[in-house]
Amino acid sequence: MRILGIDPGLATMGWGVIETERGDSRYISCGIVSTAANMPFPERLLSIRTQLREILEEYAPDEIVFEELFFFRNVTTAFTVGAARGVAIAVCADFAPDNLYEYTPMQIKQAVVGYGHAEKQQVQQMVKMILHLNDIPRPDDAADAVATAITHANAGRARFQFKMK
Amino acid sequence: MRILGIDPGLATMGWGVIETERGDSRYISCGIVSTAANMPFPERLLSIRTQLREILEEYAPDEIVFEELFFFRNVTTAFTVGAARGVAIAVCADFAPDNLYEYTPMQIKQAVVGYGHAEKQQVQQMVKMILHLNDIPRPDDAADAVATAITHANAGRARFQFKMK
Repeated sequence: MRILGIDPGLATMGWGVIETERGDSRYISCGIVSTAANMPFPERLLSIRTQLREILEEYAPDEIVFEELFFFRNVTTAFTVGAARGVAIAVCADFAPDNLYEYTPMQIKQAVVGYGHAEKQQVQQMVKMILHLNDIPRPDDAADAVATAITHANAGRARFQFKMK
Repeated sequence: MRILGIDPGLATMGWGVIETERGDSRYISCGIVSTAANMPFPERLLSIRTQLREILEEYAPDEIVFEELFFFRNVTTAFTVGAARGVAIAVCADFAPDNLYEYTPMQIKQAVVGYGHAEKQQVQQMVKMILHLNDIPRPDDAADAVATAITHANAGRARFQFKMK
């Protein structure tokens, strides 16, 4: 099964693809979708949609997993990041309407490190170890997206309870 | 020139179309795009996109105007309404990429009633008068969307400063 993890954002949206088979996860690819702050907002949303659609077409994931966002500097940030996430969810729903899931940061830390309050660096080190990589995936948002995909792979049948509602 | 006004929302998104010619505005149509609270979130976003696309195809607006949202009960509301707005902006940007505008509630009240702190009922009464309607458009979100379109029609050349950034 191929899993795409997504760490939503407006300026930078991380993504990571892994392949999982009989409990074993293999790294495929990761990166970021980014938009420039000086682009008009509607164009940024269209650019996110286009970039994400290319990733979906290239990697053809079976299941797509979002990191749930909870903390925002302010309501305006929640509103604009929410827009980017909405556009991302819609394009993913075109592609895999019944296979969208989401996990909280705490669930991801718990699954990857075994401790819900782990530091970001611990999560990244574990991503590197679990996938037998030479280096931590870069940038951070891409590593976070890979961690989200690993969380889903390790959830097994329990993953159904994390379906996006 | 045909103007589509949009009052964004997740459960209910108001829309209103007017035709404006040499300073005179004529009512064309209005209504709401709605999604049920018990639908999965990704499906709600796809449904908003589909419904809005039909409106865009049917009424072929030259310019599209959003009411800017500012006040939210909480960050979660900002986040989910932001997603619905993001999806709406993206589908509108497909249709009229260089003709998206937005006005604050205060700018709309100022333009329609002549007083930035006007009550909702005053705005609706003025919408009815300006467009020579027999009744106030219903529901409220549709009337708000029509008021947004009127604001844009009355902005004339000044409307360019309200381009969505």
